[in-house]
Amino acid sequence: MTPEDTPGLATTGPVKVVGAGLLGASVGLALSAAGVPVQLEDASPASLALARDMGAGTPATLTDPEPVLVVVATPPDVTADVVLAQLSRHPRAVVTDVASVKRIVVDEVLAAAGPDAARYVGSHPMAGRERSGASAADADLFVGRPWVVVETPQSFPAAVLAVRALAVDLGATPVRLGADEHDDAVALVSHLPQLAASLVAARLVAAPDGALALAGQGLRDVTRIAASDPRLWAAILAGNAAPVARALREVRGDVDALVAALDRAAEEGPLTPGAMAALADVVGAGNAGAARIPGKHGGAPRRYGYVSVLVPDAPGELGRLFSEVGEAGVNIEDLQLEHSAGARAGLARLAVLPTAVGPLEQALDERGWRVVAE
Amino acid sequence: MTPEDTPGLATTGPVKVVGAGLLGASVGLALSAAGVPVQLEDASPASLALARDMGAGTPATLTDPEPVLVVVATPPDVTADVVLAQLSRHPRAVVTDVASVKRIVVDEVLAAAGPDAARYVGSHPMAGRERSGASAADADLFVGRPWVVVETPQSFPAAVLAVRALAVDLGATPVRLGADEHDDAVALVSHLPQLAASLVAARLVAAPDGALALAGQGLRDVTRIAASDPRLWAAILAGNAAPVARALREVRGDVDALVAALDRAAEEGPLTPGAMAALADVVGAGNAGAARIPGKHGGAPRRYGYVSVLVPDAPGELGRLFSEVGEAGVNIEDLQLEHSAGARAGLARLAVLPTAVGPLEQALDERGWRVVAE
Repeated sequence: MTPEDTPGLATTGPVKVVGAGLLGASVGLALSAAGVPVQLEDASPASLALARDMGAGTPATLTDPEPVLVVVATPPDVTADVVLAQLSRHPRAVVTDVASVKRIVVDEVLAAAGPDAARYVGSHPMAGRERSGASAADADLFVGRPWVVVETPQSFPAAVLAVRALAVDLGATPVRLGADEHDDAVALVSHLPQLAASLVAARLVAAPDGALALAGQGLRDVTRIAASDPRLWAAILAGNAAPVARALREVRGDVDALVAALDRAAEEGPLTPGAMAALADVVGAGNAGAARIPGKHGGAPRRYGYVSVLVPDAPGELGRLFSEVGEAGVNIEDLQLEHSAGARAGLARLAVLPTAVGPLEQALDERGWRVVAE
Repeated sequence: MTPEDTPGLATTGPVKVVGAGLLGASVGLALSAAGVPVQLEDASPASLALARDMGAGTPATLTDPEPVLVVVATPPDVTADVVLAQLSRHPRAVVTDVASVKRIVVDEVLAAAGPDAARYVGSHPMAGRERSGASAADADLFVGRPWVVVETPQSFPAAVLAVRALAVDLGATPVRLGADEHDDAVALVSHLPQLAASLVAARLVAAPDGALALAGQGLRDVTRIAASDPRLWAAILAGNAAPVARALREVRGDVDALVAALDRAAEEGPLTPGAMAALADVVGAGNAGAARIPGKHGGAPRRYGYVSVLVPDAPGELGRLFSEVGEAGVNIEDLQLEHSAGARAGLARLAVLPTAVGPLEQALDERGWRVVAE
């Protein structure tokens, strides 16, 4: 994001960013690049210096002009305290936070802010990455992501507008939700998947090497996010404890039913009445739930056609494949690369519009690619 | 696989394939393409005709020459019965099966086969896809995949060799495991991940649309395999009931600890002693387990460097990116494409050798790509 290609931001600044980690520094980078003055604050002088050196803004001083907007980007367990401190320190500024839990923050702020609560609006940009800290910051981190805006009954409309404008200025799509709606939603679409990935991966700690050698793409996909930061996630989960516990209790109910069915199958044989049906029910419910996940670009889940191609494992081969797909006039909507232990070729599975499947298969076949039946 | 590029298979045939679904038809396709005579059998005339039309072999007749090898590729719940029938029908043939569970099949076969058991060797090619049936068959389905070979105490060495040769002829890597070792391994690396994906996705059935709109790549990865066939999976899970129940009980133990910690955090606040630590422990154990999953091409997990690039959502853009990566002499080891609701550009995250990160970032930057900080 450069001043040239973002001619007019709604956010004028100065903007103060408290907490110069991944999210805070990314906000600072994007605004600074667009010419908005950014004042940075962080409890750690080293983090502050790193964010400054990356171009996220300048360290806040006592002589700074008053900010019009304060973005609190601290860990969720201290967010409410920092929001309250900023509301009182900057009596005319709108204050928002970017914590990934909202009810706990909103409640603490409303309980203690008095009339200042009118200037507070919560947010949660649905953006992140496996790495954290200012060194992972990115002016484009929020581009195209949903940015949840949580107004409270006390929020002034102008404060809500300022936070929505910030989201839009950073390239995100504002989504209005209540605090509880937000927390329930992220329990299901973010916190529960994180725990499932961690729980499956945790079972591998004591697995024999021979078992791990059989790992395929399914296991890799399910456990990719298991590499996330334990301390950050402990704070997120603790901050959204009730909704996550609720979702996890429902999962435990399903697990109990599965264990009962499996025990019956183990004792009385796999064909014992009801066992197969109970197992199929859980997998079937998963089919139904997975079908509700929106596709790329949001909106209704979209059914793509797939073309699978064997790609030799050598420099330029993927490039050649994709440029020849481009030459065929076909846009790749999504793709998976699949590899196995010992394989020296990968399988690229290209998602394309259903009408493009036949022509693309033919075009690739003519160019000598080994197109694999789907 | 054509006769020209596979000059000498160890498997001479005739090979009989019983069960013309995805795996059976894929075995038939690969062998037929290499000139090995394949006799096909299936309980469903329609499936049989489809496999024949795809080139997987010719329907078995009473006047066929005796097969040297019979591959049983039926659903796991009928596999042992079919193996026994084939052992007695073809008294000189080696018989193997490709069921994804092994203890239950081996036990039934050994209990009833008498001296014929010497000619039985179990196998499990670690290959599959989301679609099933002969229409999804692929001569390259097994290329580069592990192929578990389970010999019993009764198996003749020559029978074991014949099955290992089949695996190698189909491009797979034979892996020798005992039946219990195999079943315990797939419970952890295949069956438990399937259940985790299904359980997380099942929670989405009743979720509000607004929650699903916040879905990101993490949820998509965790639930990708939740689209699997419920009937087939019920048979697999029931056939491996004891190891899956054991793994699931361990998960339930972790879930109980999580629920207890979350309840404490919900009642006494997120900072209540021990709650955060209990939550961090589970995520930390997941870190450790995920780090054990072998990387591409098997062997030790390999740490790649990553380069992330913003790719406009237009035909040819990915192609241009990859061909310019190829021009820079860099091999893409793996990649993820990330999209979000509303985004009109994707983020391609290229895994490359760590030494290639700097040069590749520079090369792409010079060519005008927006390289995003990792």
